[in-house]
Amino acid sequence: MCPGKPILPERAQAVLDLAARDYPQLELVLHPAATVEHGHFAGDDATRLAAFLDFANDPAFDAIWFGMGGYGSNRIAADALAALGDAAQDKAYLGYSDCGTLLGALYRNGVGKPVHGPLAGDIRRGEEPVRRVLDWFSGNERGLEPGLDHRPAAAFNLMTLAMLVGTEFMPDLTGHVVLVEEVAEHLYAVDRLFFHITQHLHGIAGIRLGEISDVPENDRPFGQSEVEIAEYWCAKSGIPYLGRAEIGHSATNRIVPFGLA
Amino acid sequence: MCPGKPILPERAQAVLDLAARDYPQLELVLHPAATVEHGHFAGDDATRLAAFLDFANDPAFDAIWFGMGGYGSNRIAADALAALGDAAQDKAYLGYSDCGTLLGALYRNGVGKPVHGPLAGDIRRGEEPVRRVLDWFSGNERGLEPGLDHRPAAAFNLMTLAMLVGTEFMPDLTGHVVLVEEVAEHLYAVDRLFFHITQHLHGIAGIRLGEISDVPENDRPFGQSEVEIAEYWCAKSGIPYLGRAEIGHSATNRIVPFGLA
Repeated sequence: MCPGKPILPERAQAVLDLAARDYPQLELVLHPAATVEHGHFAGDDATRLAAFLDFANDPAFDAIWFGMGGYGSNRIAADALAALGDAAQDKAYLGYSDCGTLLGALYRNGVGKPVHGPLAGDIRRGEEPVRRVLDWFSGNERGLEPGLDHRPAAAFNLMTLAMLVGTEFMPDLTGHVVLVEEVAEHLYAVDRLFFHITQHLHGIAGIRLGEISDVPENDRPFGQSEVEIAEYWCAKSGIPYLGRAEIGHSATNRIVPFGLA
Repeated sequence: MCPGKPILPERAQAVLDLAARDYPQLELVLHPAATVEHGHFAGDDATRLAAFLDFANDPAFDAIWFGMGGYGSNRIAADALAALGDAAQDKAYLGYSDCGTLLGALYRNGVGKPVHGPLAGDIRRGEEPVRRVLDWFSGNERGLEPGLDHRPAAAFNLMTLAMLVGTEFMPDLTGHVVLVEEVAEHLYAVDRLFFHITQHLHGIAGIRLGEISDVPENDRPFGQSEVEIAEYWCAKSGIPYLGRAEIGHSATNRIVPFGLA
């Protein structure tokens, strides 16, 4: 299902076809609301909320795989949390980008297993990111982010995390390695986002920097690279900078279960 | 001086000429670092910090008028606060947009009189916004935002405020009317920013919505207007929505002293 913007029907179908052909051990079900168009969203707030609860509260499902990010999961998060039943506890919830708001809210509330990983809609980037998830659903963990270690982790889109910190949905990430990635933001905006998140993330184990992709050309060069930006704000805030990470808005986006992998 | 990006020399000169011709009661001094180009910034962090302190700690000046916003005042705010002396207490600090980080930090620390209003660089929008400030410096308050009342107020660019909330620079705005404006952000991003700030602004008297200008065209319509967005998040968070305000990235940008006008 799609908590933000809708997935194109042909992309959803391509994922269903791939799974039916190569992953007979899995059964994928597309929520009918996932392809609805309502302004920016896959249906209005009530529609997306109902879709999420339809699946989350159905004990027949083992996981919810988000179809697209975009924007909008924050608008249904509070009502979703309030209406989750027992069946929601045993599930994995997998996606990234804007879906990070829901993943964070679920993690904060100890609901199920939130997982940062490719969306179903990432079929537009090729089969590989989608196969990574289908393999993971099948028990093959080859798609895990290779730098995960003995410390708990969480992964977020940088803007999504910046809008999440300090809110009622923000999980306690004390002791966590936090992986961040961004797409289509100017480097000065990335710098500004790092200022904000490092002010809010005292007590974490460190930050790892995923891809910063599709940076728009500005009227002037920023003068620092994405790594220099991360190092600058980590040093300023006393948060360890732990190097690069293989997450991002691309086909290389790996799987990061929240907590311990 | 410029805490973020530099002012073009010809614009600075135009303001100096206007003041010399029509405001003989005022003496404007351009800091030499204000026109320096260093990547995105008007000089590196040390240069901009030194420029700010040169003026803030000089008892000969009654006010610091920021030349441009852009981005970068957050990078010098902590060191600036730590180095302010007695002479900084008696000054007005006037600007907006990215300068809101410094205005907020000064307000939090009870330093001087922070004021949201046109930048010197707004001469590019015509003489009127600049005359509004020169008049205010001269004791003529015609440029005050017309909706200011008996309640304390503060005004911010929406993104700047969103990056400020929860940080060491965020002032206590309990009981304040908070005016916000935005430029060049998609409506979904405005919606996301409202989610974030309303989560952080419990206890304020209400929000007034300034201009939301130069909204880029998205691949799909958002489906709600800027007023509907403000009303939605105010209702959801229990913050009173108090209507429109005359601030924004345009020539109509009025003057909002922090606290009581």
